[in-house]
Amino acid sequence: MFSYNHLFNFAQQVFQSMGCSEEDARLATECLLAADLRGVDSHGIARLIGYVRLWDAGRINPKPEIRIVHETPSTATVDGDSGLGLVVAPKVMDIAIKKAENAGSGWISVKNSNHFGIAGYHAMRALPHNMIGWAMTNASPLVSPTNGLDRLLGTNPIAIAIPANEEPDFILDMATTTAANGKLEVLQRKKQPAPLGWIQTKNGEDSTNPEELKLGGAMLPLGGASASYKGYGLGSVVDIFSAVLSGANYGPWVPPFVSFLPLPENPVGEGIGHFLGAMRVDGFRPADEFKAHMDNWIQTFRNSKAKAGETVLIPGDPERIISEQRLQEGIHLLDPVIKDLEELAKKFSLTF
Amino acid sequence: MFSYNHLFNFAQQVFQSMGCSEEDARLATECLLAADLRGVDSHGIARLIGYVRLWDAGRINPKPEIRIVHETPSTATVDGDSGLGLVVAPKVMDIAIKKAENAGSGWISVKNSNHFGIAGYHAMRALPHNMIGWAMTNASPLVSPTNGLDRLLGTNPIAIAIPANEEPDFILDMATTTAANGKLEVLQRKKQPAPLGWIQTKNGEDSTNPEELKLGGAMLPLGGASASYKGYGLGSVVDIFSAVLSGANYGPWVPPFVSFLPLPENPVGEGIGHFLGAMRVDGFRPADEFKAHMDNWIQTFRNSKAKAGETVLIPGDPERIISEQRLQEGIHLLDPVIKDLEELAKKFSLTF
Repeated sequence: MFSYNHLFNFAQQVFQSMGCSEEDARLATECLLAADLRGVDSHGIARLIGYVRLWDAGRINPKPEIRIVHETPSTATVDGDSGLGLVVAPKVMDIAIKKAENAGSGWISVKNSNHFGIAGYHAMRALPHNMIGWAMTNASPLVSPTNGLDRLLGTNPIAIAIPANEEPDFILDMATTTAANGKLEVLQRKKQPAPLGWIQTKNGEDSTNPEELKLGGAMLPLGGASASYKGYGLGSVVDIFSAVLSGANYGPWVPPFVSFLPLPENPVGEGIGHFLGAMRVDGFRPADEFKAHMDNWIQTFRNSKAKAGETVLIPGDPERIISEQRLQEGIHLLDPVIKDLEELAKKFSLTF
Repeated sequence: MFSYNHLFNFAQQVFQSMGCSEEDARLATECLLAADLRGVDSHGIARLIGYVRLWDAGRINPKPEIRIVHETPSTATVDGDSGLGLVVAPKVMDIAIKKAENAGSGWISVKNSNHFGIAGYHAMRALPHNMIGWAMTNASPLVSPTNGLDRLLGTNPIAIAIPANEEPDFILDMATTTAANGKLEVLQRKKQPAPLGWIQTKNGEDSTNPEELKLGGAMLPLGGASASYKGYGLGSVVDIFSAVLSGANYGPWVPPFVSFLPLPENPVGEGIGHFLGAMRVDGFRPADEFKAHMDNWIQTFRNSKAKAGETVLIPGDPERIISEQRLQEGIHLLDPVIKDLEELAKKFSLTF
């Protein structure tokens, strides 16, 4: 078990060793570790070495000059200057929040960025401002469209954070596939079969082999046999809003997260794309009124009749409960992750 | 088979007989028949008698004064004055488009409205303005949250329309349940079982009985056994954006479409809620650039490798193809629908 503070100090030093400013390194670390706290282990400190390898390969600029390249009062396109998504996205959220203060809402499409950790962290940045936060990103292509065999979409997540008053905030953070890639990685490590409906073979047959992607298979969009066109449609919207609006790479051209894979040829844009937004709740009705009704909405759902032995949860409940536990009890890391962190310590002459 | 024009003239006369102005009746008819054209038979002229019955019950105001009750440059809340959703929603879309012209985007939450037909029609209204259109609505509660037994959500659709250049526009229009209610109605008429994952019994067991809702059962959120929390989360976002932002009824308080069911007691708001938006693509990059890349996006997906005997479709393809057919060949109506229309003709002394 490692304490949050221990991991925070180490990750911050790694980012500073890559050349990030102290402020950017703190921001990137807070964002990265939000994944470990919220139980999305695949997107947290386990990925720190991946970011370092991208930096080693010259694909990450540790000192990006993030700038608005096109805008209206409530919209903008931002160039992330090849920065860490972990730094670019929170800074862009702050621009969206500023736009929302002035125009009621702010919607920003981002090009030339990199993987930004968990979408939920960015959406939640709007909450203290009594705003609804919105975060989406495209990602390395692993998913086939309905009826298709080629891998054309990432697991393209959507996160929406909505403030309540006395109740915990409503926080939806979901991949547009049946299962997030991180869940597949867990089954790979445990050598357990995947449920039907998560993946297909390279010929489009159902598969339960968690290693199927290495054989040319693909992940499947949310919705299952009769409704995967819905997950495919949502994943496509994420791709278009994140990259066709901004001028980032889309579809099969999205750069891979792993540095050992080559960049796709003939890119159609720059880097990876995100779409981030903030909307003032008092752009619609007084914030205290809205938040009182959110409390009522949440209580109505939470107190509704559940199946025997089950509970009706509100989006964000599981992550909040894990987060409280891990802040107190510490964060468990798998041996391969500890090995990676020790390698990073050696590389940068740090102590883990 | 009935021609589009024949059905248009008749429906318009019915709406005028209810007291709608000629202009509003035309708008309502165009919106209603968009469902018949696009193959969503459940939401089209088959529902005309349902709207008339709501009007008979005093739940629809044929001469609404639609007004903005709260606003910022890019957001607003609109009171639909108990109007037909078929009239309120297109007029609100036009307000959203106007806001987008000035502020880059416009997002409007609507209270005190009624059922608005298919969401896709409203989203598509933004397309000729080189804008992305967005339409959502809450609806009569038929859906249980994950792990739950109570019916707390409607099939709460999301429609997103994105303009392309030479390719047909990208139009996603989806319920946030595994299957739209209309698909269940088709199985009821054909007396065929429903696929597993569409519905559950009142005790939460899997069911294939298409009449299960009459026995206290519920529809299930998009996502299936391992991921229905995603459909539940999306349906919840639709409910909150449409009704908690605007001050409409949410969750179990949403008024039923059928006039023979009583209105829920102790309402938490006014009428049904919608959330409608428009976003200028040139709020992000020049429109011609965006649309050229949309063509490339669409062609890339359409021409990708498909399973044997299948085609990779773009969201909106099936509805567009049906629409072209039906405009030429006419629209087939089921006998019970024809009987309803004949009843309406008699009621209002019209000829069907």
